[in-house]
Amino acid sequence: LRNGYPEVVYCEGKTNEQIKAIILKLMEKNNNIMATRAKPEVFEKVKEITEDAVYYESARIIVVKRREILKSEKTIAIVTAGTSDIPVAEEAAVTAETMGNSVVRVYDVGVAGIHRLFAKSEILLKANVLVVVAGMEGALASVVAGMVDKPVIAVPTSIGYGANFGGLSALLTMLNSCASGIGVVNIDNGFGAGFLAAMINRL
Amino acid sequence: LRNGYPEVVYCEGKTNEQIKAIILKLMEKNNNIMATRAKPEVFEKVKEITEDAVYYESARIIVVKRREILKSEKTIAIVTAGTSDIPVAEEAAVTAETMGNSVVRVYDVGVAGIHRLFAKSEILLKANVLVVVAGMEGALASVVAGMVDKPVIAVPTSIGYGANFGGLSALLTMLNSCASGIGVVNIDNGFGAGFLAAMINRL
Amino acid sequence: LRNGYPEVVYCEGKTNEQIKAIILKLMEKNNNIMATRAKPEVFEKVKEITEDAVYYESARIIVVKRREILKSEKTIAIVTAGTSDIPVAEEAAVTAETMGNSVVRVYDVGVAGIHRLFAKSEILLKANVLVVVAGMEGALASVVAGMVDKPVIAVPTSIGYGANFGGLSALLTMLNSCASGIGVVNIDNGFGAGFLAAMINRL
Amino acid sequence: LRNGYPEVVYCEGKTNEQIKAIILKLMEKNNNIMATRAKPEVFEKVKEITEDAVYYESARIIVVKRREILKSEKTIAIVTAGTSDIPVAEEAAVTAETMGNSVVRVYDVGVAGIHRLFAKSEILLKANVLVVVAGMEGALASVVAGMVDKPVIAVPTSIGYGANFGGLSALLTMLNSCASGIGVVNIDNGFGAGFLAAMINRL
Amino acid sequence: LRNGYPEVVYCEGKTNEQIKAIILKLMEKNNNIMATRAKPEVFEKVKEITEDAVYYESARIIVVKRREILKSEKTIAIVTAGTSDIPVAEEAAVTAETMGNSVVRVYDVGVAGIHRLFAKSEILLKANVLVVVAGMEGALASVVAGMVDKPVIAVPTSIGYGANFGGLSALLTMLNSCASGIGVVNIDNGFGAGFLAAMINRL
Amino acid sequence: LRNGYPEVVYCEGKTNEQIKAIILKLMEKNNNIMATRAKPEVFEKVKEITEDAVYYESARIIVVKRREILKSEKTIAIVTAGTSDIPVAEEAAVTAETMGNSVVRVYDVGVAGIHRLFAKSEILLKANVLVVVAGMEGALASVVAGMVDKPVIAVPTSIGYGANFGGLSALLTMLNSCASGIGVVNIDNGFGAGFLAAMINRL
Amino acid sequence: LRNGYPEVVYCEGKTNEQIKAIILKLMEKNNNIMATRAKPEVFEKVKEITEDAVYYESARIIVVKRREILKSEKTIAIVTAGTSDIPVAEEAAVTAETMGNSVVRVYDVGVAGIHRLFAKSEILLKANVLVVVAGMEGALASVVAGMVDKPVIAVPTSIGYGANFGGLSALLTMLNSCASGIGVVNIDNGFGAGFLAAMINRL
Amino acid sequence: LRNGYPEVVYCEGKTNEQIKAIILKLMEKNNNIMATRAKPEVFEKVKEITEDAVYYESARIIVVKRREILKSEKTIAIVTAGTSDIPVAEEAAVTAETMGNSVVRVYDVGVAGIHRLFAKSEILLKANVLVVVAGMEGALASVVAGMVDKPVIAVPTSIGYGANFGGLSALLTMLNSCASGIGVVNIDNGFGAGFLAAMINRL
Ligand SMILES: Nc1ncnc2c1ncn2[C@@H]1O[C@H](COP(=O)(O)O)[C@@H](O)[C@H]1O
Ligand SMILES: Nc1ncnc2c1ncn2[C@@H]1O[C@H](COP(=O)(O)O)[C@@H](O)[C@H]1O
Ligand SMILES: Nc1ncnc2c1ncn2[C@@H]1O[C@H](COP(=O)(O)O)[C@@H](O)[C@H]1O
Ligand SMILES: Nc1ncnc2c1ncn2[C@@H]1O[C@H](COP(=O)(O)O)[C@@H](O)[C@H]1O
Ligand SMILES: [Mg+2]
Ligand SMILES: [Mg+2]
Ligand SMILES: [Mg+2]
Ligand SMILES: [Mg+2]
Ligand SMILES: [Mg+2]
Ligand SMILES: [Mg+2]
Ligand SMILES: [Mg+2]
Ligand SMILES: [Mg+2]
Repeated sequence: LRNGYPEVVYCEGKTNEQIKAIILKLMEKNNNIMATRAKPEVFEKVKEITEDAVYYESARIIVVKRREILKSEKTIAIVTAGTSDIPVAEEAAVTAETMGNSVVRVYDVGVAGIHRLFAKSEILLKANVLVVVAGMEGALASVVAGMVDKPVIAVPTSIGYGANFGGLSALLTMLNSCASGIGVVNIDNGFGAGFLAAMINRL
Repeated sequence: LRNGYPEVVYCEGKTNEQIKAIILKLMEKNNNIMATRAKPEVFEKVKEITEDAVYYESARIIVVKRREILKSEKTIAIVTAGTSDIPVAEEAAVTAETMGNSVVRVYDVGVAGIHRLFAKSEILLKANVLVVVAGMEGALASVVAGMVDKPVIAVPTSIGYGANFGGLSALLTMLNSCASGIGVVNIDNGFGAGFLAAMINRL
Repeated sequence: LRNGYPEVVYCEGKTNEQIKAIILKLMEKNNNIMATRAKPEVFEKVKEITEDAVYYESARIIVVKRREILKSEKTIAIVTAGTSDIPVAEEAAVTAETMGNSVVRVYDVGVAGIHRLFAKSEILLKANVLVVVAGMEGALASVVAGMVDKPVIAVPTSIGYGANFGGLSALLTMLNSCASGIGVVNIDNGFGAGFLAAMINRL
Repeated sequence: LRNGYPEVVYCEGKTNEQIKAIILKLMEKNNNIMATRAKPEVFEKVKEITEDAVYYESARIIVVKRREILKSEKTIAIVTAGTSDIPVAEEAAVTAETMGNSVVRVYDVGVAGIHRLFAKSEILLKANVLVVVAGMEGALASVVAGMVDKPVIAVPTSIGYGANFGGLSALLTMLNSCASGIGVVNIDNGFGAGFLAAMINRL
Repeated sequence: LRNGYPEVVYCEGKTNEQIKAIILKLMEKNNNIMATRAKPEVFEKVKEITEDAVYYESARIIVVKRREILKSEKTIAIVTAGTSDIPVAEEAAVTAETMGNSVVRVYDVGVAGIHRLFAKSEILLKANVLVVVAGMEGALASVVAGMVDKPVIAVPTSIGYGANFGGLSALLTMLNSCASGIGVVNIDNGFGAGFLAAMINRL
Repeated sequence: LRNGYPEVVYCEGKTNEQIKAIILKLMEKNNNIMATRAKPEVFEKVKEITEDAVYYESARIIVVKRREILKSEKTIAIVTAGTSDIPVAEEAAVTAETMGNSVVRVYDVGVAGIHRLFAKSEILLKANVLVVVAGMEGALASVVAGMVDKPVIAVPTSIGYGANFGGLSALLTMLNSCASGIGVVNIDNGFGAGFLAAMINRL
Repeated sequence: LRNGYPEVVYCEGKTNEQIKAIILKLMEKNNNIMATRAKPEVFEKVKEITEDAVYYESARIIVVKRREILKSEKTIAIVTAGTSDIPVAEEAAVTAETMGNSVVRVYDVGVAGIHRLFAKSEILLKANVLVVVAGMEGALASVVAGMVDKPVIAVPTSIGYGANFGGLSALLTMLNSCASGIGVVNIDNGFGAGFLAAMINRL
Repeated sequence: LRNGYPEVVYCEGKTNEQIKAIILKLMEKNNNIMATRAKPEVFEKVKEITEDAVYYESARIIVVKRREILKSEKTIAIVTAGTSDIPVAEEAAVTAETMGNSVVRVYDVGVAGIHRLFAKSEILLKANVLVVVAGMEGALASVVAGMVDKPVIAVPTSIGYGANFGGLSALLTMLNSCASGIGVVNIDNGFGAGFLAAMINRL
């Protein structure tokens, strides 16, 4: 059914050997493969079975490229509030790129210094889909959605402390946004956001 | 910026007189107007100021049509688990229709009797965007997202009792879905889902 | 100790007769009196015992003015995200005014349409203390605190539905703000915010 | 009272020496013994006192077999959504087997790819009791309960992240299921599910 | 599939007219019908279309009997902690009876006066399946499950106040029970408990 | 004011050196000293400054005895549901003993095997005050309070997993008890329970 | 067992007729009777069957006095933070008095004006047991427990709004008190506090 | 805009190298620099690039002083309930001092021994702004706010266990305070409190 989509392996809770075996199995089909939440050791293992593997460290993703994906002309903008949100953003970015999308990164533009965000408004307005990644109070999603008229995928992160409750604060913010045009994914779910953005971008 | 979008009034917490005044003001622009969460009494008031108002009872929406919107050829499917979810689904449907979309309704196909859902798989596969509305455990979103390869907007409803905690159960289900390609909106937020689906459908 | 402060009666959970008796008692001292969360019926009762009572309907406050308070030259700005937040904002405003402050109201400037907020930036920058009142996701407090370098009192409101959980969403947002210089009060606690702002403004 | 039931030792929070002593004591009765949540080191200790001990690694259970249990003819099906749920499922399976039941395992049939589940429907329909083990959103219990007319014991697992809140998401899903015929046990409680299934299967 | 099971209508959130229409439709099949959570007015409506309807007031259930169900010889015991739990217990009892079971009621035997419970131990020991209905702290389920070696279906109720949080207290108690052999259903879900007990009792 | 009470040092979050210094300071007064939540290393340090220190390992308490306390004739019974609750129970027991009380321990009498509890009823009935320590569902407090007519101090413990939520389950059970005569302390707060029991026992 | 204790009927969730019948039944024994949470209408009914009934309006308790109870010489002090806490305090007071205790009331001495509390310290120090009733942040229990060396029963009330969450705030405050010698009962459970205080006072 | 304010680097979640690079960059401007939540290793790194760095160990703050800040004459009092709250208090104190304020520390004056607090009342009354830092039940903020008529910044800490829920208890206490004039910051957010106090003190 999902023609052109990569095979995806979620590494958390699997042993290196299990992951290696799954990837070996998936390599029989002529499809691209992504392994998410992969630690550097996993990459060492995967290199033993294929030379096509590339490791995106910040994104914690291994990509095994088996065939070329046509790049969409419409871009996906990935926006973060802080620098600590970047790993989640990169998970989204690499996922979307592996699925054949052009991604533009707009990082560290949180609402406490809103001029930094406005300096990027031209880039935001050009995007076809936007992914907004933010922890702490997660207010960035509302502000961005109010600036553009394209769909915004909001990703709360667990960055913060105290009454942040592991990302709950940003999650509730994004679900209750007063701006229209926002769909929310799970806390820290960069993969899910990148996947959904890619799915929307190919419509 | 948002060319072709209707003006939207959220009626909850406003008096009938306030709503009437806001609509009168908005009528000065040549734009369509939607009043959501509108009780029948509100419609009585609005009829006093315009003949163009139509009331969608189940959706609790008043539409004041001021200009024609081109209908998209790509359809939005709106799916519910039970009959009690229909008001929220209708809010999504009327919102999407007012924004120029063809909507196909697939109601009462909850996962406890999954053959009812499968009987509709052809319709689901034809849709360009899907909105899944479900209360209680909200499992329908995962199953539908697994059947199609188009974006799914998931709307948890507050239908249920006990450990449902006002829709929290379905909300968490949808955020934690093991299926990819789901964006979640607030509990009972049919309007937000219809709006986001429409925004995606015009890309 | 608290020279120049009004006496305050919190009406919720008291009978009209109880409130009347308390006010009668307080009138023996030569101090101004505020009765908060007062329904119109309470005002009817209070008028029976004094002609000096004024009722601020939206704020739900009765003021019995017994002596003149010197007005501070430094203003307090009271800002709301939506129109439904106005009763809480008015509670703050009337409290601050009764305590001898000049209040400037900046209402309905929520972050979904951030140009409306920026159009008011001059007023915001002139204020000595700011009170930001917002429900739903409550993102406004962060944005305002990022624009000014004066203390911001943030008041989450219970406006919203679903995953708003009675104001919890806005409360967590404000506590986790990435902007510095914010002190938070209880959900819907306009009185507390106005009082604290007044206390700061007279330093 | 509980004729034919094994003695059960819950190892968590006990020292290896304590566990060894308890098992030694229990061996005086002529009953089978199960030690659950047992780490490999515990098994090393237990082997010192008896040769009858067998260690089920994935289930984290040690069984000391002292007498033969008659096998029931009616089978218990144990179903999981993902591979990470297998340890909890194995805890249920080994518990049920030790109590004299035939167990059939149906693993990795989560609802995101529902054809995998349907491919197993014949096996599911033959079972007398079913145990469904699922993390993340836990939707599998509802779908299975809708397919069969036998009792379903649902076990939420803590597999997931973010808004999963340590298994709360799957727990609420299972409690709020729109399908009838489901009894829920505690998060990750494979033992409790296997025990209850065995108890039902011998009626 | 579910041969011999009644058709079930859940009345909450449906209009009297809707319920009447659904029952009329279901009467075309030669099956028994149960309408749960039915107010007396619903019964008045249903009497207009059939003489076979019986109303169980405390259980809030209407039964339309269309064919005889063979009674099982094995009994289901339904046990409550207090008198306020009786409506939920009756919902379970009438559901089980309508599905062809002999039910024995053991009411008002909460653990604060445990002799009352022990005075009934003979009855409890004779049952093939037990349903335990309790609010407040819900401790009864653990005690009963410790006394018998048959499956116990535990139903937390919302009876209580304060830190009861609408039944959450009893729900958590039952899920965390130190006794084995307990399956839990949703708060106040007497129907679900009676249904599951009946399903188990016919194995 | 608190004549005859020991000085108490809570060790958690303090360095060994800090604790040593505080105890040295307290030794200037002629009072007994208790250091709670003390790891074995702390005891090593304390032995360097006094020979009067005794370490109660299971209770994690160091007692520095400086003067004799008269023993009360009335006993305090300390009761636990399981063996994992013993450290908390010992914290209560050693606290009460250090404050001059006779303590009788009744351990491992949880409600899942209620005959074990009843075998001890004579002891329970003789006590003047009772402390009940239980994790998981915490039902023991209700049952004990129903058996005696003396005050019961209930201590929820964090023993358990899953929906136990770190002791919340037992805490709610004890607060919502249907039995009268129970006062609850914080989760795992053996010290607080022992202190309160001692305070009551000397009335 | 509980010699000299009154019979207690909890009226919430019972019909007037049910309460009347229960009281009639209890009158056969020669014991005092208390009906708690009784509305005025209940009292009208009860007067029909006995002339000995007295109604304590603020406490919402009906007492049917059948025999004299010896008054203890040691007093119980009942302390409230605000006036809205008085109904809960009166429930405790009337319960304790009916059980033969002298009660001294110290109302409206919340910590925001701590001199009011200190003005009463002599009374507090004379009490043998203290009941502290407080809503909002419930800080009063800690302060009182620090002033006296007698047991304190803390009753959180549901008075407050917003982040009070129905009394949760005061409940957590009391459970986490840094002062020793506090036992906590359920939110608004004046009866339970009065009963426990009485039980302690007769030791 | 924020003339005279230091540049602030939040170290949590950044590598030592990243922090060093950011500080190097910030040193180009002639501004003071604060690095909060800095471990000793960070300081070792920072010393490599500048001799002006000072490390405040308890506060976990590195200050790089580049220019003199005029000291305000009005003092900020920083008050703690216990000794474990001191690191958070020091974070507030060093922040305020670095921003040019005179800070007076009043530590370990929790409400369980309220005479210790009153012994300091003269100091408290002299302060222009107060920061109150407290964990466990956090009652200190209410008591202090009731004693003074200056603004109080309340900082809940995560000190405590059990029903403390990581600082939630103290947070709710402070938000629900019955005393007026309190603004609350996030759990453990000493920096935020010191910053807000400094901002208020320079008005
Ligand atoms: N980082 C991630 N977060 C959430 N879901 C993921 C992630 N990576 C992969 N997935 C999902 O997990 C599935 C693979 O799970 P598994 O079969 O356990 O390897 C994929 O089909 C994705 O839908
Ligand atoms: N009291 C009840 N509580 C929970 N579920 C119920 C109840 N009564 C009926 N149901 C379920 O609801 C379904 C009918 O729902 P509906 O189609 O909305 O009438 C039945 O098949 C039952 O599974
Ligand atoms: N106001 C109250 N709050 C909590 N429990 C109560 C209250 N009044 C009575 N009770 C308890 O409820 C029992 C009587 O309940 P019932 O048999 O339902 O009338 C008494 O024995 C008391 O333990
Ligand atoms: N300890 C702290 N707690 C909360 N926020 C802080 C803390 N220290 C610094 N900040 C904020 O974090 C910002 C710097 O974040 P970053 O750009 O990630 O270094 C500063 O402007 C402060 O507003
Ligand atoms: Mg937008
Ligand atoms: Mg899909
Ligand atoms: Mg600012
Ligand atoms: Mg089924
Ligand atoms: Mg049992
Ligand atoms: Mg008792
Ligand atoms: Mg005390
Ligand atoms: Mg004050």
